[in-house]
This record gives sequence, structure tokens and C-alpha cells, in this order.
Amino acid sequence: MLQDFTICINTDFVFGRDAQRKVGEKLTGLGVKKVLIHHDNGKFLYDTNLLEDLQKDLDSFGIAYTELGGVLPNPRLTLVYQGIELVKREEIDFVLAIGGGSVIDSAKAIALGALYDGDVWDFFLGKAEPKKTLPVGVILTCPATGSESSMVAVINNTQAGMKLLVSNPVLRPALTFMNPELTCSLPKFLTACGIVDMFSHVCERYFCPEDEIGVIDRMSEGILKTLVDIGPKLLKDLGNYDYRAEIMWIGTIAHNNTVGIGRVQDWGTHEIGNELSALYDTPHGATLSIIMGSWMRYVFEKKPERFARYAEKVFGVERREGKEGTLEAARKGIEETEKFFRSLDMPISFSDFRIPEDGIEEMLDHIPFRGEDDSIGGIVRLNREDCRNIYVMAL
Amino acid sequence: MLQDFTICINTDFVFGRDAQRKVGEKLTGLGVKKVLIHHDNGKFLYDTNLLEDLQKDLDSFGIAYTELGGVLPNPRLTLVYQGIELVKREEIDFVLAIGGGSVIDSAKAIALGALYDGDVWDFFLGKAEPKKTLPVGVILTCPATGSESSMVAVINNTQAGMKLLVSNPVLRPALTFMNPELTCSLPKFLTACGIVDMFSHVCERYFCPEDEIGVIDRMSEGILKTLVDIGPKLLKDLGNYDYRAEIMWIGTIAHNNTVGIGRVQDWGTHEIGNELSALYDTPHGATLSIIMGSWMRYVFEKKPERFARYAEKVFGVERREGKEGTLEAARKGIEETEKFFRSLDMPISFSDFRIPEDGIEEMLDHIPFRGEDDSIGGIVRLNREDCRNIYVMAL
Repeated sequence: MLQDFTICINTDFVFGRDAQRKVGEKLTGLGVKKVLIHHDNGKFLYDTNLLEDLQKDLDSFGIAYTELGGVLPNPRLTLVYQGIELVKREEIDFVLAIGGGSVIDSAKAIALGALYDGDVWDFFLGKAEPKKTLPVGVILTCPATGSESSMVAVINNTQAGMKLLVSNPVLRPALTFMNPELTCSLPKFLTACGIVDMFSHVCERYFCPEDEIGVIDRMSEGILKTLVDIGPKLLKDLGNYDYRAEIMWIGTIAHNNTVGIGRVQDWGTHEIGNELSALYDTPHGATLSIIMGSWMRYVFEKKPERFARYAEKVFGVERREGKEGTLEAARKGIEETEKFFRSLDMPISFSDFRIPEDGIEEMLDHIPFRGEDDSIGGIVRLNREDCRNIYVMAL
Repeated sequence: MLQDFTICINTDFVFGRDAQRKVGEKLTGLGVKKVLIHHDNGKFLYDTNLLEDLQKDLDSFGIAYTELGGVLPNPRLTLVYQGIELVKREEIDFVLAIGGGSVIDSAKAIALGALYDGDVWDFFLGKAEPKKTLPVGVILTCPATGSESSMVAVINNTQAGMKLLVSNPVLRPALTFMNPELTCSLPKFLTACGIVDMFSHVCERYFCPEDEIGVIDRMSEGILKTLVDIGPKLLKDLGNYDYRAEIMWIGTIAHNNTVGIGRVQDWGTHEIGNELSALYDTPHGATLSIIMGSWMRYVFEKKPERFARYAEKVFGVERREGKEGTLEAARKGIEETEKFFRSLDMPISFSDFRIPEDGIEEMLDHIPFRGEDDSIGGIVRLNREDCRNIYVMAL
């Protein structure tokens, strides 16, 4: 059931109230001299003095710093280049991201490029393999992507019209400071987008070709069930610390491979959904809620048992015996999935988000089909025609 | 629900068939020059050429090594001293344990003492705090204690008549090689002891004072359920790779705090059971299966809701509504726990293991009661009288 794997989640987490006040102490422990504070100009720092307090903290430990703000969603390569230059010029030895996935990914790319003589874009094109980076730290203010301990960074090269990903264990941040209080002022839609993203990160791993059920599957079911339980409660009570804490930690474990080891992962929903972001700038979480139900409906009959189990364990669907009972439960689980997204006020179709129908062929042109079968996906392989069908189902 | 916590599980895991053949390559990556190979003279190396193959592998990478065998269960401080001297004399820069918990703990103590000028026992007495150790690696051959990525080491000072524990993040091994094939020849009783130990490691964390149920609780239930599902199957099919793999990974996550963060843990069963090992040399897993049911019966009425939920989620016990239904389900869950241990041929009472009744007061004398209430435990605090009652219930 567990295929061979390697894993090392070597991020040092400080979690809880006032976590961000431990930065100076922790960086002193690492011998850091000068920090690049990287952020998005406070986009996610509602009602806090986070930046000011951080600077005081660093001052009190005698750690120097330079600031680089301006990170945009779908973080830009141009700013990464600027950061690399700054780091090299000012002899910076630590990159600290304050923000969510975009800022963290931008910080990772800067830290990677800072120790490389060539063009950092080489790593994204697969022309070079990451071997080392400056250490990266994170003060997480928007949980969703899991980038605070994942080995992934996604950067947008607008000049080349390419948004590419690099994945390597050296990209896991060294330090992550997680204070759920800092997320209590996140608005509803961003919060919901994060929850959908986490849900999808677990599903992309849970829906694997393996028939047997093992410990990783059951842990995944526990995470999904908690999102279904707490997600809607949090949206009605956005300042609730306990709910924020649960969601924040789930964002981390959903994407650092705690529940991704030893299996063939899927990622069909992400790859199909990503093209909606590329063409229409649809927020990532919304692309997932739009595609996921249709993806499930398109593939579940090839692995009905796993989908029926998902329905039972995550949504408490009752299941009749026999093949028809399995299919019926699986269908019910898919309905429940979409009901869950709706309860978060997230779209489940193109029309819900006023996305036009006429871009499908263009999106299909950009999906990175690969392998001998020119397909994507894990639990079921999907070619161009399959993906077209899924887009159409999601209209 | 999630209390403040810090965690960093910085162990690099290589898991799967042939994992142990990656040692030379990985150590070369770390720049290791000379290894202390620490073991128990092949006690757990049935039918393999593990040691010989390892030496060939190290030779091929030009890494020198020295051997120190002879580790006993409840690893001895005397051997630790010998190891420290050897490491210092031969300028060893890496300690590699081949074995289970005893060998790993002995290796950790050697690696800790090697970089300390005083007596390594100081750390166990709390007179010194661990700051650094030589890097430790593990080829795991007997999964149970989770020491392959935990921050704990337990050493037996037979001269002083003390078995003490040191716990610190610097004690997490740097590298762990886990090949389930190497555990396929473990005999039935040792396998069962390991399963009970893992089950208890999760229970000690799951049975916490918190009333709300969050993601860590649900992940814990998934681990426990998998042990209940796979444990008995493995005992009937000891060479089954898939079952061995599941059990091996569960041993790791059960004790590295993946499901221990953000909560007050209990550890009552361990502390009460440990005295059976001290006085009668009862194997650790057996002390836990003997004590756990009685511990549960003694404490469950103070937190019936959590015990009823455990019964439902781990053993599928049906639960009637109302307070009586909760208590009834909780009682049923305790019965099922003992049935599960019995299905593994493990003892659930003193008499099952022919342990006499007359040592109870002596054992009580050694339980490390502490705090203002002179007690142990987390979900319910237990004083001397409580522990006496639990021993008597377990006769």
C-alpha cells in the first residue's frame, strides 16, 4: 500500500499566539546578520502593526534588514530578479516572507537565485536543479497554499507568458511563524478560497490508483472531514481563534506531503483549473471549486470504491451494499462536495463566476499533457478530449 | 483547540525496499568521514546480510567505520560510556544505529555525550540541557518506539538503579532508513509488542483534556483504526510487505508528535506500566496492554464523551443518545480495546503474564509523581492511591 518514498519536512514551526514575536530570537539562533523582509505591502495585514513590531524585534537583537514589498498574486519574475540583485548587493543572508503563498514563493525564488550564478528562471524551465538556497522564513498571514513548508514555488514570467513551478526539498522554508490571530481579519472570500485549496490539496493525494486503504488514507479523511466540519462554521465566525488555528495548520499539512507519501498523486483538478487562472485571472481556490465536482463526476466510475468510501467517511453518506450501492454513494459524495463548496459561497461552475464558454480550446492548448499517453492525472489519466469534457460539464 | 506549540521533525526518511542501500550515498552528501556502527549483535537481523552489505556500501564510498555491538534491551549507560570514549578516540563524526528503540536510544546518548565535556548522565538527571549532538542515523529493524525520529532517549543506569529519559529536539535522528522487508522476519510476540506500543503512543496523545474535536484528533483516530485493522492481519501473515510497511510508518508518526502537537498529553499508562518493566523486566509493549484497559476503566467517567467517540471511531461501536448511551459506548470501547490486545495474543492483566501481586507498593514508590498535586497524567491526574487502584484492577 505504501510505495517507496523519501521525505524530510525540516521546517521549524512556531505556532500560536505571538508566534511572530519569536523571529529575532530564532534568527539570532541561526546566526543571521541581515534579513530581506519580503511582502505585499500589507495586503493581508489588516489591523496589525506586524511590520513595525517585527522591525523593533529585529532591532533589539541587532539584526539588520532591508525591505522589498510589492509582491502581486501570481508573483512576478521581474520582482524576483529585483530581490536577487538586492540580496547580492546588500549581503543579505536570510529571506523572510510576510504573507501568503505568493509572497512565500517569491521569497523562495529570490533565495534560490541568490546562490546561483545563472538566471533563476533556469530552475523553472528545468535547465538547472536546485541544490541550495539562502534560508527562508515565513510569517504566515494567509493560509491556503501550504508553501510555508512545501517544497514548491510557482512564479509568473509575464514577459514569456509562462507561469511555472519548481519543486525540490531544498525549497522548504527553514522557519515558519504561524499566529492564527493574524488571520482573523482575512475577509470571507479569501478565507473560503483557502479552505477549498486545502481541501483540494488533500483530494489530489487521496484520489490515487491504490485500492487498499491504509493509514495515510485515513489521516486524509480526517483532514477532509475537519474542513467540512469547521469551514462553514469559520465563515460564520471569521474572528474565531480556534477555527482559524485548525484551518491554518490544515493548510500546512495538506500540502507538505504528510498525507502525500507512498502513492501516485493525481493533480488533475489543479492542472485543469490552473488554465482558468491563466486565461481569466480566476482566483486559484475558485478554479478548484469550479472544476472539482465535474472532475469527480467524470472519473469516479473508474474507481467507484474509493469515491464511495470518500462519501461515507467525509460526508457521512450511507451506503447500500453491492455495485449499485457503491455508485450511488459515490454520486452522493460528489453532490455533497459541491454542496460544501456552495456552503462556503464558492462557485461550482463557469457560470457561477461569469466565465465565458469560448476559451475552452485555448485553455486545452496550454494544459501540459505529457507522457506516452499525452495525458495528465493519477487516479485516472486524462487526455485533451477528457479535459474538454470536464470543462463542458463545469459550464 | 490547538494550543501553542513548536515542532520541527527534521529527520530525513528513506522508506521502502532497499532503503538501507542508500546509506553510503546519503552519508557522503553529509560529508561524513567515519561512522560508529552501533547494534545489538544482529538480534533483529534475521536472515539478512545487513551488516556485511552496509560495510561494503561504506567501503565503496570511502567512508571509514568502527563497530560497537552489544546493546541490550533497556540500553545500559555503561555501553554508552564505552561508545563515547570510542567516538572521541577514533574521531568518529556520525553514529549509525542498526536496530530498534534500544539501539537507537543508545546511539543518541553516545552522540550527545561525544560533544559534551561532562558526564552524559547529567542530561538524564536534568543537570544539563542538550544543545548539540553528533548526527545520528538509523537503519530501523524493529518498529515500535518511534525513536527513529522522536526527540527522546531512555537509558538504564543499572549501577544507580535508575532508568531515565532525556527529551530534546536535538535528539531527533538526522537520517532514517526504513525498509519494511527487514522487519518481515520479526517474530510474532515482538511484532505484537510493537503494535501495542504504537497504539499506546497515539492514545497517550489522543486522551487529552480538550473537549472539542479537531484535525489532530481525527488523524489520531485514523492511525488507531489502521492498527486495529492491520495488526491482527499482520500477525497471521508476518511476511506481508504491505502490512509491515503500514505498521513501520505508523510506529514513526505515532511518536514524533505528528499527532501530539497543541495539546496536553497524558502518559499515565506508560508511567504506570514502566514500573512493571523496572521490577519484573516485563517487555514494554506487554506492560502497556496489561495497564491500558484498567487505566481507561478508572478514568473514563471523568471524560466520557472522548472515550465514547474513541469507541465509535476506532472500533465502530454504535452509540445511543443521552448520557447513559455515552457511558455505555465508552465501556464498550474499553472492552474492544482489550479484545484487540487479546487478538494480538498480548496480556491484559498481571495474571496473564504471571506477574505476582505483591510488588504494587514497591512500584508505587518509584512512579515519578510530581507537581502540586503529586500526581501523573493529563486527561485525568492520578495520585498514588489512583495508581494503586489501577494496578489492582489490572491483577
